[in-house]
Amino acid sequence: MSEEKLQHIFEAAGVDALFIEADFLRRYLTGFYSTDGYVILDGKGCRYVADLRYFEAAEKALAGSPVEVIEGSYKEAMALLAPYKTLGVPYPYTDLASAEALKNKGFALKDCMPALKDAMIVKSEKELSLIQTACTIAEDGFLALLPDIKEGMTEAEVAALLEYNMRKFGASGTSFETIVAFGAGASVPHHETGNTKLKFGDPILIDFGCKAEGYCSDITRTFLFGDDKKHEDFKKAYGEVLKAHELVKEKLTSGMTGKEADEIARGSLRAAGLEKLFTHSLGHGVGLLIHEYPRLAPASSDVLQDGMVFSDEPGVYEAGKFGIRIEDTVCLKGGRVHSFMSKTQRELLIL
Amino acid sequence: MSEEKLQHIFEAAGVDALFIEADFLRRYLTGFYSTDGYVILDGKGCRYVADLRYFEAAEKALAGSPVEVIEGSYKEAMALLAPYKTLGVPYPYTDLASAEALKNKGFALKDCMPALKDAMIVKSEKELSLIQTACTIAEDGFLALLPDIKEGMTEAEVAALLEYNMRKFGASGTSFETIVAFGAGASVPHHETGNTKLKFGDPILIDFGCKAEGYCSDITRTFLFGDDKKHEDFKKAYGEVLKAHELVKEKLTSGMTGKEADEIARGSLRAAGLEKLFTHSLGHGVGLLIHEYPRLAPASSDVLQDGMVFSDEPGVYEAGKFGIRIEDTVCLKGGRVHSFMSKTQRELLIL
Repeated sequence: MSEEKLQHIFEAAGVDALFIEADFLRRYLTGFYSTDGYVILDGKGCRYVADLRYFEAAEKALAGSPVEVIEGSYKEAMALLAPYKTLGVPYPYTDLASAEALKNKGFALKDCMPALKDAMIVKSEKELSLIQTACTIAEDGFLALLPDIKEGMTEAEVAALLEYNMRKFGASGTSFETIVAFGAGASVPHHETGNTKLKFGDPILIDFGCKAEGYCSDITRTFLFGDDKKHEDFKKAYGEVLKAHELVKEKLTSGMTGKEADEIARGSLRAAGLEKLFTHSLGHGVGLLIHEYPRLAPASSDVLQDGMVFSDEPGVYEAGKFGIRIEDTVCLKGGRVHSFMSKTQRELLIL
Repeated sequence: MSEEKLQHIFEAAGVDALFIEADFLRRYLTGFYSTDGYVILDGKGCRYVADLRYFEAAEKALAGSPVEVIEGSYKEAMALLAPYKTLGVPYPYTDLASAEALKNKGFALKDCMPALKDAMIVKSEKELSLIQTACTIAEDGFLALLPDIKEGMTEAEVAALLEYNMRKFGASGTSFETIVAFGAGASVPHHETGNTKLKFGDPILIDFGCKAEGYCSDITRTFLFGDDKKHEDFKKAYGEVLKAHELVKEKLTSGMTGKEADEIARGSLRAAGLEKLFTHSLGHGVGLLIHEYPRLAPASSDVLQDGMVFSDEPGVYEAGKFGIRIEDTVCLKGGRVHSFMSKTQRELLIL
């Protein structure tokens, strides 16, 4: 991250220093990943306290960056904080045990997550490129999976194979627990991927994603494993979900609120008489976390801007019958929506 | 969990009610897993507040258990807490944002993790059986991997294949990020599994584990991919690590401290002149978390007892040359060590 952006975050937090323990936030501020370490951001700059396991690697990775690497652990970090009274810590990612330890040392704490959130909501070119990588790997993993889907496989087997493909194509892991649902299982929004076996004619819903250098992708595809002609309602609903999904890509522009964006899809499904079956919101921000800001939802006043990354995922769920969701990870660029997904079809696929 | 044990935890915590948000702790207390929900444990019993996504499944799963399931979300949980002043929350697993919200409602907070930790350190028969399942799946995954290891594969590919095998055999996921290290890479304790390609004659270190209904396994095997006769030092050190590992199984008895247990392995490696290369502690508790209590380390006063589960993992690391670690997940039973691992050899394997 640039010195300027670091300085901006520091000023926005309104504290003597930010003290960051959560690994994804350390990565965000410095670009370096480790399982342990501390980042201190104050008026003088950004320091990374790394122990002997990571010190050399951190020094090498951060040479030429605005981040100074210091060898040490908790004790050394505390020594660096000694001049300060008020520390900014991210409340949602700071546990009470750590917080109590800081308070016992005499520090006053203030939540710096709002300042970090404001910075994280708009992605840099580097971040966009990592998200693109994570999306490409996810799509490649899905395409490599399709020929291996066979009758009798369990949902868990399909999930395992897809995750293996993504790892093989370079993902460091999944960005959330892969959801694979066969048949009516897809009508349960939080379906647990299990031992249900695939039958000819089943619809399949797969919601998945992976990570590239910490950045997430998020994608859902719903398709048919064979077409036994009993899918009239499914196909009709699929067409409406696809229409809502594409309409968002067409009509969403920078400057809209999350509520207005959500209404593009919701209004389209309302016109088709399916609004009641669209039981969640249109989308969520995607970045180092799989659920970030902005929110694209009926109650969201977030203003959507260029550089923001989020999911476009309308869905329709009829209990005990079917569940359909079509999701791309997309970004705003030049005022318009650009999808990171270009390889997998959104039109109904019949295997 | 039995009503008696729940009551015991409540009394040990010394609060009006325990309020549990962390998913693995909800699972511990009730045996039911969900991504969201609240558990309230007070003098009257244990209540699980689950929203509509989970309510039906929770009611079904917990019928006949001492846990009462209540439909609702945060608001309903707060209403149930209204009669109380002091809440027990697990400090290391409660974020500051949640804690502030509770304080703003007028609750005094107290750390209930010590009471939970004391209960969790000794496993029930059900828990031991789930850990056995996780260990068996890990071993089966490893055995299925061996014939597929070929020259030129990357560390990441080997990790992906092993994880796929474990999923296929029924794991819900890994219990931590799989470590695969070829050659001298294994001498770095926190080696990052990467794109290094396997060469004939390389030693391979694999540290891995998976989960079964939330419970973890942890196992490390070090072996040779072909024996090109340049492994004299490696083989000598391997023999000493194996000796230390087996000595722990033989000599560790219930009633010893973590320090005494660690010393069994450390003393053995000291006698072989390798103590300086044993750069970590002997082991850690394993359960719903991959790192739990007890600690088996030079500074640990934890008293080891029947029903405790931990790793036996001595290691020797010579920078730039090799790294050797042999690890089983084991438990104490009838005063003696029993390993959950019975399928994979600990004697040096040469592929």
